[in-house]
Amino acid sequence: MNKVHAEFCRRLNYTFTDPTQLERALTHRSKSKNNYERLEFLGDSVLNFVISAELYDRYPALSEGDLTRLRASLVKKESLAALARGLGLGELLTLGSGELKSGGFERDSILADSLEAVLGAVYKDGGIHKAAPVILQLYREALAQLNPEAIPKDPKTQLQEILQKQSFPTPIYNVLEIIGEPHNQMFVVECRVAPLASAVRGEGSSRRTAEQQAAARALKMLSSPSSGAQPPRGNVPTNH
Amino acid sequence: MNKVHAEFCRRLNYTFTDPTQLERALTHRSKSKNNYERLEFLGDSVLNFVISAELYDRYPALSEGDLTRLRASLVKKESLAALARGLGLGELLTLGSGELKSGGFERDSILADSLEAVLGAVYKDGGIHKAAPVILQLYREALAQLNPEAIPKDPKTQLQEILQKQSFPTPIYNVLEIIGEPHNQMFVVECRVAPLASAVRGEGSSRRTAEQQAAARALKMLSSPSSGAQPPRGNVPTNH
Repeated sequence: MNKVHAEFCRRLNYTFTDPTQLERALTHRSKSKNNYERLEFLGDSVLNFVISAELYDRYPALSEGDLTRLRASLVKKESLAALARGLGLGELLTLGSGELKSGGFERDSILADSLEAVLGAVYKDGGIHKAAPVILQLYREALAQLNPEAIPKDPKTQLQEILQKQSFPTPIYNVLEIIGEPHNQMFVVECRVAPLASAVRGEGSSRRTAEQQAAARALKMLSSPSSGAQPPRGNVPTNH
Repeated sequence: MNKVHAEFCRRLNYTFTDPTQLERALTHRSKSKNNYERLEFLGDSVLNFVISAELYDRYPALSEGDLTRLRASLVKKESLAALARGLGLGELLTLGSGELKSGGFERDSILADSLEAVLGAVYKDGGIHKAAPVILQLYREALAQLNPEAIPKDPKTQLQEILQKQSFPTPIYNVLEIIGEPHNQMFVVECRVAPLASAVRGEGSSRRTAEQQAAARALKMLSSPSSGAQPPRGNVPTNH
């Protein structure tokens, strides 16, 4: 462990009994077979558990859907990468020459994955009672700034609101197919919205999740400039 | 707590200090606002963590991808529902009249979700040091029967093997587009396979994940009778 590693551990607020765990958590697959991927698998589940338990306690009135959205905002790649940058993780990464040249040390996905691996390493080194406070301290500011009022709405609600604002009719959902045995079904639905030329499909183990997936895809297509979406005409909605 | 609940707890190998946690874990949203959904959110993350840590220790030689596939096979809806049935969970469910009539107590999704909630309730009631052994005992047989040799291969490997078996050339992957800033990119790739008339697209935050997604879609299309897949030519047997 050199000075930069020591500074990293100080910021993380954790001292490794076995520093090889940390080394591995900072090693990309382009460099070595002994890389961070297994620790990332472990760390991801530790992080998810600690954040879930914290949100469950903090927000006793929030629904499961809102808790899921809050958690997603905390553990998504961009959030993890920002935390990794705050810890100076990029400087410590061990990368293969190709990744080094292409700037892998500043790529969100590598920073996020390696930080998850570091959390996995803390857990392996010290157990859950050491890992939980490290995670909660790392997320202290992000948790303090969480605003449950600002939780993005579910895709179906978002889609409906966007269309209403533009004076389009509300989306139409149709079940196209139900596959599988009664106790274990897969629903295939379509969502038709006026500004998109063709229907958008969604799949899921319930009608509700399939419709949410279709709505999420429709939202994505509406927000993409190459979607073929037509601007609203006058104040008269076009019906498809 | 009646006799049936006591028998359930005996099978689960856990005695609740606060039985209202268990009651809530067995109550469906069709019956009450005080239902299992929040506990399910919590229990899902506890289960995921305990199983991940166990697999990480049990299989030091397995890759992250293989660990992920093993975990998925253990925590998928069907596996959870089977465990719930073994505990007699269905009899204890509190459902609204609609769900009761339509047989909700034997539906995989409700059984699986409620069992996750029960595990969340154990965690809330006794902490992670009580919940972990309950989970590992519940999964004892499933863990003993796990066969890492039988882990399904990743989609790209599967696709390649299927095509080789049918004497088709190997799939061709092309990057169509890289969207976004260098630190946060989205790759759009296509996968061309001989038996499919048109290329199949995949998206992901890395070239690797985008290719896997495209391969997964191609596999799905090849196995679907309406895929438009053409039978191999020559003396190769048609395997549809």
